[in-house]
Amino acid sequence: MAPPDSAPLPDFEPTPRTKVKRLWQRACYDRETVYGILDAGLMCHVGYVIDGQPYVTPTAYWREEDRVYWHGSSASKMLRNLETGIPCCFTVAILDGLVLARSGFHSSINYRSLMAFGQAEKLEDEAEKLRTLEVFSERLTPGRWDELKPPSQQELKATTVLTMKLDEVVAKVRNGPPADDEEDYDLDVWAGEVPVLTQIGAAVDDPRLKAGIARPGYLAEVSINALDETS
Amino acid sequence: MAPPDSAPLPDFEPTPRTKVKRLWQRACYDRETVYGILDAGLMCHVGYVIDGQPYVTPTAYWREEDRVYWHGSSASKMLRNLETGIPCCFTVAILDGLVLARSGFHSSINYRSLMAFGQAEKLEDEAEKLRTLEVFSERLTPGRWDELKPPSQQELKATTVLTMKLDEVVAKVRNGPPADDEEDYDLDVWAGEVPVLTQIGAAVDDPRLKAGIARPGYLAEVSINALDETS
Repeated sequence: MAPPDSAPLPDFEPTPRTKVKRLWQRACYDRETVYGILDAGLMCHVGYVIDGQPYVTPTAYWREEDRVYWHGSSASKMLRNLETGIPCCFTVAILDGLVLARSGFHSSINYRSLMAFGQAEKLEDEAEKLRTLEVFSERLTPGRWDELKPPSQQELKATTVLTMKLDEVVAKVRNGPPADDEEDYDLDVWAGEVPVLTQIGAAVDDPRLKAGIARPGYLAEVSINALDETS
Repeated sequence: MAPPDSAPLPDFEPTPRTKVKRLWQRACYDRETVYGILDAGLMCHVGYVIDGQPYVTPTAYWREEDRVYWHGSSASKMLRNLETGIPCCFTVAILDGLVLARSGFHSSINYRSLMAFGQAEKLEDEAEKLRTLEVFSERLTPGRWDELKPPSQQELKATTVLTMKLDEVVAKVRNGPPADDEEDYDLDVWAGEVPVLTQIGAAVDDPRLKAGIARPGYLAEVSINALDETS
């Protein structure tokens, strides 16, 4: 879905903060995996610190090239604090299933997740803001942007868009069946996976929808948290 | 699903950290809403600070009465840091849909979310750890716990369980159709909601499943992120 990057960037380098020590087999630093998770997901959790207190705010995000973006009201506490350049942790986690092992100890979940460290920057240029908001809209509902009432100057001003460069990133992925202790495979216990899927439901018309407006075709293209068929 | 609380607790009091200033209409401090979100969800994002750097770690959680619990390997960086009693932010967010308004500005998402501030405590008592791990297992797959190989002393020791009292909590919920500017309802643009649902897929047998073991009935009871029909 995302445009191909013009010049392939190298994979991410583990740093003291992103080097996975435990279950290192699940860690990935390759751009394909990281971008794949980012392009599938919609919700991130952004961490920041005010007076020593951590805050974790869920919000929608999108990716372009080697950057993630998120936005909201210019009055948002999260955005106002992060735009000052304080340290930021950007986390995405997609739940893919329950892993039911023969022991509680080996029971687990399947997931795709990533953690990125850095500092957010505020987009100051109005044209650039408008451009990337269009990218966000088109990622979810391709073709809709041109139908919408364009944002007014006032609306653009009331919207803050932050971006963070993907530089210090680690992905962590688990998939597949349980990994039980060898002697437990003989137990009389069912074991396996229970897939957890994100389903896009049938669109619901606004009760105030103007007469004669049909549901647009792009509603069928909405895709969130989908597993790449090829992976 | 959760046992009824024996003595009803009062609603949460807004604090400087949980008082919602923007879109305050979406804020809820009542226990029913907070517990409803907690009992529907499975994944939380836990925020903590190490050397001024925020970390946001996704993990599974469960609730009992006025406490949330989460667990993992005793070697986990997240657990080892939080068990020292540093400030913690516990966030849950469930995506319920896209809200497609007639302008980009009023487009939004429907969600159920909450943020809780406090300090985590480590469960030191082995019997208490075992008891609450059973609650977690039974929340997801009622009846399975007794089928499983019981945890060994070594496994229990290798598992850290943290708990945090729900004290300073705010929920934020959005649902329903778009809220467009009055003059925009006449535009020739489709508007409405695209529901995003968490679907529990058909269970997949472990490729090494012992012959003759049927899929247990509790697999049909797995429920994650479900919207309460009565709400």
